Amino acid sequence: MSYTLVIHGGAGNITPAIMNTQQEAEYTIALKEALVKGTDVLRAGGSATDAVVAAICEMEDNPLFNAGRGSVFTKKGLNEMDAAIMDGSNIAAGAVAGVRNIKNPIKLAREVMLHSGHVLLCNEGAGEFALKQGVEMAPDEYFFNKSRYDQWVEIRDTDYTQLDHKGDNLKGGPVTPNTGHKFGTVGAVACDAMGNIAAGTSTGGMTNKRFSRIGDSPIPGAGTYANKKTCAVSCTGHGEYFLRAVVAYDVSCLMEYKGLSLQEACDVVIKDKLVKMGGEGGLIAVDALGNYNFCFNSAGMYRGMRNSEGKEIVGFYGM
Amino acid sequence: MSYTLVIHGGAGNITPAIMNTQQEAEYTIALKEALVKGTDVLRAGGSATDAVVAAICEMEDNPLFNAGRGSVFTKKGLNEMDAAIMDGSNIAAGAVAGVRNIKNPIKLAREVMLHSGHVLLCNEGAGEFALKQGVEMAPDEYFFNKSRYDQWVEIRDTDYTQLDHKGDNLKGGPVTPNTGHKFGTVGAVACDAMGNIAAGTSTGGMTNKRFSRIGDSPIPGAGTYANKKTCAVSCTGHGEYFLRAVVAYDVSCLMEYKGLSLQEACDVVIKDKLVKMGGEGGLIAVDALGNYNFCFNSAGMYRGMRNSEGKEIVGFYGM
Repeated sequence: MSYTLVIHGGAGNITPAIMNTQQEAEYTIALKEALVKGTDVLRAGGSATDAVVAAICEMEDNPLFNAGRGSVFTKKGLNEMDAAIMDGSNIAAGAVAGVRNIKNPIKLAREVMLHSGHVLLCNEGAGEFALKQGVEMAPDEYFFNKSRYDQWVEIRDTDYTQLDHKGDNLKGGPVTPNTGHKFGTVGAVACDAMGNIAAGTSTGGMTNKRFSRIGDSPIPGAGTYANKKTCAVSCTGHGEYFLRAVVAYDVSCLMEYKGLSLQEACDVVIKDKLVKMGGEGGLIAVDALGNYNFCFNSAGMYRGMRNSEGKEIVGFYGM
Repeated sequence: MSYTLVIHGGAGNITPAIMNTQQEAEYTIALKEALVKGTDVLRAGGSATDAVVAAICEMEDNPLFNAGRGSVFTKKGLNEMDAAIMDGSNIAAGAVAGVRNIKNPIKLAREVMLHSGHVLLCNEGAGEFALKQGVEMAPDEYFFNKSRYDQWVEIRDTDYTQLDHKGDNLKGGPVTPNTGHKFGTVGAVACDAMGNIAAGTSTGGMTNKRFSRIGDSPIPGAGTYANKKTCAVSCTGHGEYFLRAVVAYDVSCLMEYKGLSLQEACDVVIKDKLVKMGGEGGLIAVDALGNYNFCFNSAGMYRGMRNSEGKEIVGFYGM
């Protein structure tokens, strides 16, 4: 039985200079635990979709990552989360944007895919659907995290947001070492024993986010995409660029229409096209043969891979 | 000075059987007026983006179309609108989803593109941005339309939505002749005298819509896309399929990566791939040489074209 799981926990200015030994150990444990949770599903013959959900839930539950429990605070001091799942076997997709008090947004995204008749729900409306489906909720306190809160307090009276880029018109501050842990998105892609593939992404968005901004994470084709014919992709980075470049689907199209390999397609999109646009970030990808790729144009990306051959990779910094 | 403007007012079960002579005259006038407004901008040397906005505003202001003033009612009896604009000269994009009381959502989308540092804003947050930018608002009464209201009253106590498809899991009723006018989305694509292209789309969504559903219209790559290297595209149809198929960007990729012509690419996406998925609808497209295409797999599509050579086309039914 052959399977592959690949995960990321965000890309950005992740360098040895901003990580001490204890942090390295914490992230290593966190990534390995997510890899175990996802591959447990795959080893038991579960679907790529369920493996992606299991791996992402583990990261959503860990305050280290900006997703689920560890989500950052918006301008109004709230935790608003986005998530998407896509099943490459039937090109089905489900996504939510701007949801609050949902313990695992990725599970709600799966409910949207399976039971809503829709693809993308947002804000209070998505919350109403969550209640209808009996998705697990959590109070504000569950999402409270002192370090995220302090990050927000520092900039809440400004128009600035903090994320993994240096965009002037966003008034986003340049990435500095002590903001290294805020580059947040988590994602997973998997190839299961049936040769099906799936992709999922979950994020708490940007610190001090305003105007119910939606990034690329919950958008099929931009931050998340899966199609058995080509690849499953989950992105992390400066969402506005990933939206405009339709990054995840671009990787798929380069494979389908130009015959590029998974790695060639990822490299063209992330290291050439996106760099020329000024977009910083990365992605993880897998194809139906279990080939996988980590690809980023930022200093680093929290990432991991575990497959049926017993191979395991965990990394943070540039390759 | 060479320019081309193409518009649509929605696709679906638009046949001579559901249109009487007066309705044909009304739609003809409405489409021609939008063509005039857009080409006035182009003839004066204006940008493709501004021409798209001008043409779409005209249709948003006309209660015949499900966009702006003519928007349908949600489950809660509200008018929630989506819109997107994309400028092919720099691949910039701006979009809003679920906005209320915005007179011209397409203008708000342009504000997002030019002044927010973001691509996609939604719901109340997008409304706050509109207030900040001084975008023109309108009271609920402005959007009230007796026939839209009656359509909603008919189904508001059910879980059904009405749009241009026959999806079972949506509990969407099959399209019947007297729902022919609800297939709503409007869009425009333009090629200006500088050879720049742009695309825009605006919609009032689905009657009896719940859960703050977002369709393809405001999503760059799905319902709206523009890139000077390839094409500008605006879609209309069953949004969930258009989202999953990343329709607008797929047309662009088929041109860029496989060398297909504009028409060939549109035909592959709409008449082959989308049909196989079960997705009904259509699109309009233009390239930087002023080549244009109407393409739909439904019975009809409200549409029009006007260019610098004095050619004008207005149509409703199958070609």
